[in-house]
Amino acid sequence: MDYETPLFFRVMQYAADADGDVIDMVSGNPDWEPPAALREGLSEYAGADPEQFQYPPSDGLRELREEIAARRNVDVSQVVVTNGAGEANYLAMARALERDSGSEVILTDPVYPYYPGKTTMLEGTQTYVETDDAGRLDPDDVRSAASAETAAIVVNSPNNPTGAVYPEETVRELVSIAEENDAVLVSDEVYDHFDLSGAFASALSVDSDHRIVTNSFSKSMAITGFRVGYAVFPKNLVESARSRHMLVNVAGSRPAQHAVLHALRETGPDYYQANRDRLRERVETFTAALERAGATYTKPSGSFYVLVRFDGFPGTLENVERLIDEAGVAGMPGNAFGSAREDWLRFALVTPRVEDAADRLVEYFG
Amino acid sequence: MDYETPLFFRVMQYAADADGDVIDMVSGNPDWEPPAALREGLSEYAGADPEQFQYPPSDGLRELREEIAARRNVDVSQVVVTNGAGEANYLAMARALERDSGSEVILTDPVYPYYPGKTTMLEGTQTYVETDDAGRLDPDDVRSAASAETAAIVVNSPNNPTGAVYPEETVRELVSIAEENDAVLVSDEVYDHFDLSGAFASALSVDSDHRIVTNSFSKSMAITGFRVGYAVFPKNLVESARSRHMLVNVAGSRPAQHAVLHALRETGPDYYQANRDRLRERVETFTAALERAGATYTKPSGSFYVLVRFDGFPGTLENVERLIDEAGVAGMPGNAFGSAREDWLRFALVTPRVEDAADRLVEYFG
Repeated sequence: MDYETPLFFRVMQYAADADGDVIDMVSGNPDWEPPAALREGLSEYAGADPEQFQYPPSDGLRELREEIAARRNVDVSQVVVTNGAGEANYLAMARALERDSGSEVILTDPVYPYYPGKTTMLEGTQTYVETDDAGRLDPDDVRSAASAETAAIVVNSPNNPTGAVYPEETVRELVSIAEENDAVLVSDEVYDHFDLSGAFASALSVDSDHRIVTNSFSKSMAITGFRVGYAVFPKNLVESARSRHMLVNVAGSRPAQHAVLHALRETGPDYYQANRDRLRERVETFTAALERAGATYTKPSGSFYVLVRFDGFPGTLENVERLIDEAGVAGMPGNAFGSAREDWLRFALVTPRVEDAADRLVEYFG
Repeated sequence: MDYETPLFFRVMQYAADADGDVIDMVSGNPDWEPPAALREGLSEYAGADPEQFQYPPSDGLRELREEIAARRNVDVSQVVVTNGAGEANYLAMARALERDSGSEVILTDPVYPYYPGKTTMLEGTQTYVETDDAGRLDPDDVRSAASAETAAIVVNSPNNPTGAVYPEETVRELVSIAEENDAVLVSDEVYDHFDLSGAFASALSVDSDHRIVTNSFSKSMAITGFRVGYAVFPKNLVESARSRHMLVNVAGSRPAQHAVLHALRETGPDYYQANRDRLRERVETFTAALERAGATYTKPSGSFYVLVRFDGFPGTLENVERLIDEAGVAGMPGNAFGSAREDWLRFALVTPRVEDAADRLVEYFG
């Protein structure tokens, strides 16, 4: 089987191996501090009884599931704690595809590259719906594409890579389209704490047996390496997803779950607000420099990413590597995200050096 | 899809909810201390730079893979660090089944119940080969069962639940049978540090493109909840397993990998020897009491388990629950491990109270 391996790791490796100083804007790895309580939780756990080092419940520490359920206003039985949003999306998509209600997965273009890879691995087929220049998804386009063959519609808001935030009407329509076609909407909301627009709507705001919401603490707590995420399933879909989780992973990693539980309880809104403020500032700084250079770019309403187009410099892997070597700035090729942004490059605002980076780009292309 | 959910969690829950004092011998959760260096590694990590809280390489921390490769005498490119042996077995079985070289998985009876569950999830079919009363597997029986339809032969030595340790001739023969039928031997060796016989042979001792070895630190370091395992693949099979791992889990949990790396480097043979000695003592104590009671039992050559048969008391879930309520001892029903041990119960020697437990059983059945 030949999966489409996401390029992230390859580009990061190239940047790491490059001579000279490279500003890394490749992957969505936060460069800021996790909550103080996360470190406390992990320290505390290091001294725990051996009993606490053994298997947690397969679907996650009970208290963690309860904290999540309370925050999301769902029943605790609907929550499965996963090995990051990566596994949550895998479980959700597998669940949608095993319902014998079609084998087509509707994705957006541009797309987060793991979704098409997961689709192929799960023996589904991809159908793409293009978003507009600002990354907005028109539900009518999704409705036209959907049919009895549709098993899942997978969306991500706030969006990677476009920075779009889907308004509540869009989310509501997507749920309806899933219902009309006996499909499942998979709504990946990992950037929910990085909504800069105030317009973000979770798919949980629409009650339905046809939507699964996935999320993680990777971005909100700046711990992409801990691998603690979750999925909220409708009650009719949760059982076999839980079985698949058990058969694939047995359970998630307990030190990470313990630390996240402690951080979730002890961290106030200031922590998340400060992260949003920092991101907003970086967006302003980076796009202002791009503006001065006359580049074409998207200004994100949420998530960590800015898409940029430089004339005569399409978003290929070769050009990304050239930019690493010659300008000292590492981004992602736009063609990694489907065909709609092949002329673009994606830069992640996860470095304090965004002004530097923008200056280097301006100088290189100026 | 209807998976066969392993019963472990259900029985443990029943035992936890029971009135009165119950000696828990259900699951293979060690009750002893992890290496001191494991706790140190975790404490140290709790104070690390935020950068170290982000994604590790998808196939595991490089230094951890190097330590594993050096110990197993394989090339580092063959090692994929997984979310425990559970994921390692999933990846190995998926890899065997996606080769378009049959869809049959040969398993032993008794069997570790996750294997048939994984087989069904991966759309393979199970064929069982019975082991003898002592848990010994006759390679000729496997050869008779194998055919062009065979994708994988999955074995576990030291064995759960029989306690058998397969000698080197058996392992060598199993690799040959896999080669002859263009299949893959998956050798799950998670109890390798608990070989009490001195006769254990890893399948890595036989060089072949047709065997995958899986393992974890769950048992050897008494950290079943950390979820750090690995698979060693032949070079021709590693790439797409690595892709599947990335598409399912992105990566394993970094705090756990960091702690295991530190423990692996700093822990000497004494730690492992002391754990074996403790286990050996428990085997003697428990089986001596069973002997006095005239029960039929297996004396393990390795792993944590003793199979026991009490006349007129078959190994059903109902009887296990009765034993929890009426004798205060929790084991696993033999019928959870296939048909060959339906009359038996399995007890895990992961409590200091094995003598107590044996006394209770003797009194109950005496």
